[in-house]
Amino acid sequence: MSDSVSIKIRLHNQDAVALGPGKADLLDAIVQHGSISAAGRAMGMSYKRAWDLVNTMNLSFSKPLVVTAKGGSHGGGAEVTEFGQSILTAYRELEKKAYQSIAEDLEKITQLLGG
Amino acid sequence: MSDSVSIKIRLHNQDAVALGPGKADLLDAIVQHGSISAAGRAMGMSYKRAWDLVNTMNLSFSKPLVVTAKGGSHGGGAEVTEFGQSILTAYRELEKKAYQSIAEDLEKITQLLGG
Repeated sequence: MSDSVSIKIRLHNQDAVALGPGKADLLDAIVQHGSISAAGRAMGMSYKRAWDLVNTMNLSFSKPLVVTAKGGSHGGGAEVTEFGQSILTAYRELEKKAYQSIAEDLEKITQLLGG
Repeated sequence: MSDSVSIKIRLHNQDAVALGPGKADLLDAIVQHGSISAAGRAMGMSYKRAWDLVNTMNLSFSKPLVVTAKGGSHGGGAEVTEFGQSILTAYRELEKKAYQSIAEDLEKITQLLGG
């Protein structure tokens, strides 16, 4: 069926969004691509935008979620730290739980959709 | 504390958002103000925008959520139907359940926030 639901969870820290759907996807992409610019590119995001999101995440939490290796053998690569990985896993768990919690009730509402 | 979480649930019907945080708040405002334009105004929304949102909701579900009384004693007033009220109540329940489902885990993540 064409009906669906989306749940967007955002963690706010002061005025910033510390973590949300876009930043979580960016973390996944950094894991996959091994660099912030390649991850941003894969998500159709400018280099500056991707860096801004990473900086916001790193500044929002008590420890960095992403570290970069400028120069050296990685030549500007980046990786998601163990800490970042655990935050990402916890965030994906939150999403899953939120979906599961409303699955049954949701069915009742979506039955009332036309389309 | 300054840390918080927001959960935005959106029901999609084909390409449209049938119901989400903005539309749910608009329904609340229509109940409160008794007209679409007054409700939109209270939310800092143009008349056109408020009407567009109402139209999308009404077209997305099997029955209208909002009906208008053009002219007559209500002079352009609008009301949320019993059906609309039940959808709105169900949506608020979804939000509450989603928050409750992640409350405990959330505490663990927000403890890792800096700021």
